[in-house]
Parts: sequence; structure tokens; C-alpha cells
Amino acid sequence: MRDNVINLKVVLADGEVMKTASRARKSAAGYDLTRLLIGSEGTLGVITEITLRLQKLPQSSVVAMCNFPTIKDAADVAIDTMHSGIQVSRVELLDEVQIRAINLANDKKLPEIPTLMFEFVGTEAYAREQTQIVQKIASEHNGSDFVFAEDPEEKKELWKIRKEALWACFAMKPKFEAMITDVCVPLSHLAELISRSKQELDGSPLTCTVIAHAGDGNFHVVVLFDPTKEEQRREAERLNHFMVHIALSMEGTCTGEHGVGTGKMKYLEKELGIENLRTMKRIKDALDPNNIMNPGKLIPPHICF
Amino acid sequence: MRDNVINLKVVLADGEVMKTASRARKSAAGYDLTRLLIGSEGTLGVITEITLRLQKLPQSSVVAMCNFPTIKDAADVAIDTMHSGIQVSRVELLDEVQIRAINLANDKKLPEIPTLMFEFVGTEAYAREQTQIVQKIASEHNGSDFVFAEDPEEKKELWKIRKEALWACFAMKPKFEAMITDVCVPLSHLAELISRSKQELDGSPLTCTVIAHAGDGNFHVVVLFDPTKEEQRREAERLNHFMVHIALSMEGTCTGEHGVGTGKMKYLEKELGIENLRTMKRIKDALDPNNIMNPGKLIPPHICF
Repeated sequence: MRDNVINLKVVLADGEVMKTASRARKSAAGYDLTRLLIGSEGTLGVITEITLRLQKLPQSSVVAMCNFPTIKDAADVAIDTMHSGIQVSRVELLDEVQIRAINLANDKKLPEIPTLMFEFVGTEAYAREQTQIVQKIASEHNGSDFVFAEDPEEKKELWKIRKEALWACFAMKPKFEAMITDVCVPLSHLAELISRSKQELDGSPLTCTVIAHAGDGNFHVVVLFDPTKEEQRREAERLNHFMVHIALSMEGTCTGEHGVGTGKMKYLEKELGIENLRTMKRIKDALDPNNIMNPGKLIPPHICF
Repeated sequence: MRDNVINLKVVLADGEVMKTASRARKSAAGYDLTRLLIGSEGTLGVITEITLRLQKLPQSSVVAMCNFPTIKDAADVAIDTMHSGIQVSRVELLDEVQIRAINLANDKKLPEIPTLMFEFVGTEAYAREQTQIVQKIASEHNGSDFVFAEDPEEKKELWKIRKEALWACFAMKPKFEAMITDVCVPLSHLAELISRSKQELDGSPLTCTVIAHAGDGNFHVVVLFDPTKEEQRREAERLNHFMVHIALSMEGTCTGEHGVGTGKMKYLEKELGIENLRTMKRIKDALDPNNIMNPGKLIPPHICF
């Protein structure tokens, strides 16, 4: 998403309004304040306008699903697909628990084993060609034949189900809360990250589901716990902590998409180093000297310079 | 290029070494210091290491050239190609003067009229399909039939010629200097920008050549002038000024790639507004309080807060 942001209008801490950039697609005119503001979690200013780059709708799209005996097979296919140079539009990995949740919530009968969902876009011929290339990669890793969503309504429904995957989890445990974590690692480490995490998750008494934006090396886990039971909350936190630490040991990040807030502050020093945090703090103090912009978020309180 | 930068190692003004990010492809962990540093022209720190994302070499590439009676036709084809949703790998626009320079410097006989150079990549079938789609767009705008570079050596030579286009200009005027400007506008304004600029350039007594990375709306002009003649230097500056002001009137930027340095400082306030410049200055002062990092560059000296 952030690659499609051309510029922002931002209200700064002193009440002044700033435009971050021109409307040109690329610019070397000054610091990239657009990117500095994106993901700053409201700590540097309030974004009031966003100019986005529009994308042409593709002429054709193919949506396909494929099942695997193990989650490692599925992850390997996602990695090999990305390494093949195919510009796959989406590749989503769901584990068997997530598929069970989806079946329950949507009254579906999808096979409850690790699954990849693909979208290939482009001209009709190219979307078909990509599909064939990836089908071949999948079959080399014990993948099933592809199942296709054919008509537009069917495709839309499939992505709707995917988008609502989190809510589907609550169909399994209606009164539970969800601890959601998203880590991201270099693509070459994704299969190992997923395998090691999955082993830990399967060994836990809690119900955990896995969804990965596998093409990015981005890995989400939903851990369901009973909020009235302190030991369950602690177990959810332990699992979160476990996955963040594996990701960091693989030169990954504690959060690929969700942000830091207060929950992941404690991991930043390990991930980025103290000099990075000091630099962030310097910028924060310079742009918001009275600390009125979402105070207490993102930058750990002990950082000083 | 900047989209392929994963992280940087940077020596800061206080002598400490900072890593800007993890090695993950995407991250929401803190401010995007990688992007803040890219294009900061050495004013915030000294970059000592760059981690880049590798791209798979495409299975196939097609390189094609096409000529047009007017430069507006060529620009319209570049715009329509981008709007068609084709992910063209490169589309470069060269005016007749630039082609003349290339012919002179490389002993070639390319037709000396406005020209587009394309590169289409992907699978063999897809590269061919893209070529056909764009050939159709070109023929709707009075384009010639495509001329293809067939074997790898021929392709390499063609891009080498393109890369060395600036040096080719000096074949026309060996003892002259070049004033080079690069502006960038929203794609929808590119044809108008090029038409208006070309009219002004053709009316000038100086020799001027045009090269555009047309897919980005990025437009380069080389103005050759005799450095011993003050009125020629002034005329070159006038042309530069003229083009920057047209670009800014189209919500574009005074520099798409080359940067600000000292020469384009004077345009930043018009392009970005005073609040943007004050924010840059705040960041600069916070990270480099003694102003030892490439002092005097990028941020206009009159900016204060």
C-alpha cells in the first residue's frame, strides 16, 4: 500500500499544515517526508489527506487454491514462486486450523489442510501462463491440483472469506479474545520461520491459526484465549514473544504491517539497535517538542540522547 | 532504484553507526529511516552499507524502437502504454536532436526523428504479447513499425548507447558544457510538458536534447553552451528555469532524480511550501546540530523555525 502513496497533507504539532511532496511519481526534491509520516503511528502529525496512485484494473485475473500435506511444503511453494520471477499478485498461506475456522464461519467444506490461495493477473494469456508455471512448482512440492474460482462472484467470495479470516476464528471460540502477531522475515527464511512457529503453536493448549502473506515473508498468527483466564493470556503472550524472537534471529522484523503501538516497543532495540531508536527520538522531539502527538507510542520511554 | 533498498548502515553526525531497518521486505517497526536517508544528499549522515533486494533476471526480453513524426505523438504513446496497465520494463523517449548526437558519436544511422525505446520482459510469450499491444498503441499515434534488437549483443549495445546519451551530446559540441535538468510531472501532464518545453528549446539559439524516462513522467534536458560566453550560460539557465516552472505549474517536481544540491534550492519553497522546508530543517538540526554533514546543501539557508 505505502508504495501507492504519492503525497500526504499533515497537520503538524504546531498547528501548521504541511504537504509532504508534489504529485509527481518520483522526486528527488528534499527528504522523503511522505515515507517518514507513513507508519509513524500519529506520533509526528495528523494525516488529513492522502494522494494515491491509481492502478489500472487488470484485463484478467485467475484465482486458484492448492492444498499441501505439510505447511512447509506450502511455504516452499510460495518461496519458489517468488524466486521464479513470476509477479504473482497475491499468494496467501493458511494453515489447517484457519481453514477449519473458515469452514465453520462460512459453512464451507474446504479441505482442512495447509492451503495456498493465489491470484494471477495480467492479460488473459499471461494470467493463464503464470498459473501453469506455479501449478508445476506446486506439484513438485506435493501440492494438489489447483481448484479455480471461475466467475467474478466466486472470486469475490473467496477473497471476502480470506479478508474475514480473523472474524472466522471467533466462530471456533465465540467468547475468546485474539492475540494477533505479525512478523516478517527475509523470504529465504520464511519456510523455517513457519515450521518452527507451527511446531510451537501446535504444542500449545491454545487454539492458534496461521495466515501468511507469503510473497512478502509476512506471517500472521491469531492466538485465541479466554480473557477471564490469566494463564491463557500469559500463554498467548509467550507464543507472541516466541515468534518475534525467532523472526529477529532471522534478521526479520517484529511487525511487518501492524505497527508497534505499545505492545512491541520492547522488541525495537533488539531489532534496530539503540542508535536507530535515538534517531527516531531526536526526530520525534524536533517535530513534536511538547509530545502531544500520540504520546507514549512507538518510541520506548527509556530512550534518550 | 530506491524501492530495491532494504536497509542502510549510516554513520551519524555524532560518529555513531546506525542500521536503518531489519532485512525483512516490509516492516512497520518504527519510522522509515531508510527512506529518510535515501535522497538526503549526505546532509543527515554518511551511508556506508546498502542492502539491496535482488531481482530475478527475466526469462525473456524484447527491445524495440519506434519513430514518430512529432514528439507529442511519442509522449502520447508512452502515456497510453502506462495507462494500458502493461508493466513495461523501460520506455525511453529521445528527441531528434538526441538521436542526431547518438548517430554522430556512435557512427549510427538511426532515423533522426522522435523515438521511443522499449524493453518488455517476462516469459517469452508475455514479452511478445506486450510488444504486440504496444505496437498497436504506437500505430494509433502515427508510429513506425517497431524495429527490434534481436540478439543479446545488439540489445546490450542499444542500451549502452542510451546510457551514454549525455556523452554523445558532446560529439556535437566538443568544447561545450552541459546544463542538465530533470523535472518530473504526473503522467497525465507529460505530453503537454514535453510539447511546451520542446517549443521553447527549439526557439533557443543553444543546442538542446531531450531524453525522458517517459513511463515515470520524468523528463531530462541537456542544454549545451559555450562556457566562455556568459550570455550562453544565462540562456541555459533561463531554459532550466522555464522547464522547472512549467513542471511546478503542473504539480510536478523540480527534480525527479538528480537532487537539489545548491542549484535547485530556490525552487523548493514553491514546490513544497514553507512548512515542508521547516520540517526538513527541524530534522536536519536534530540529527546534525553542528551542521557538519554536507553543509549548505538541499535546505535553503533562509529557512528557520
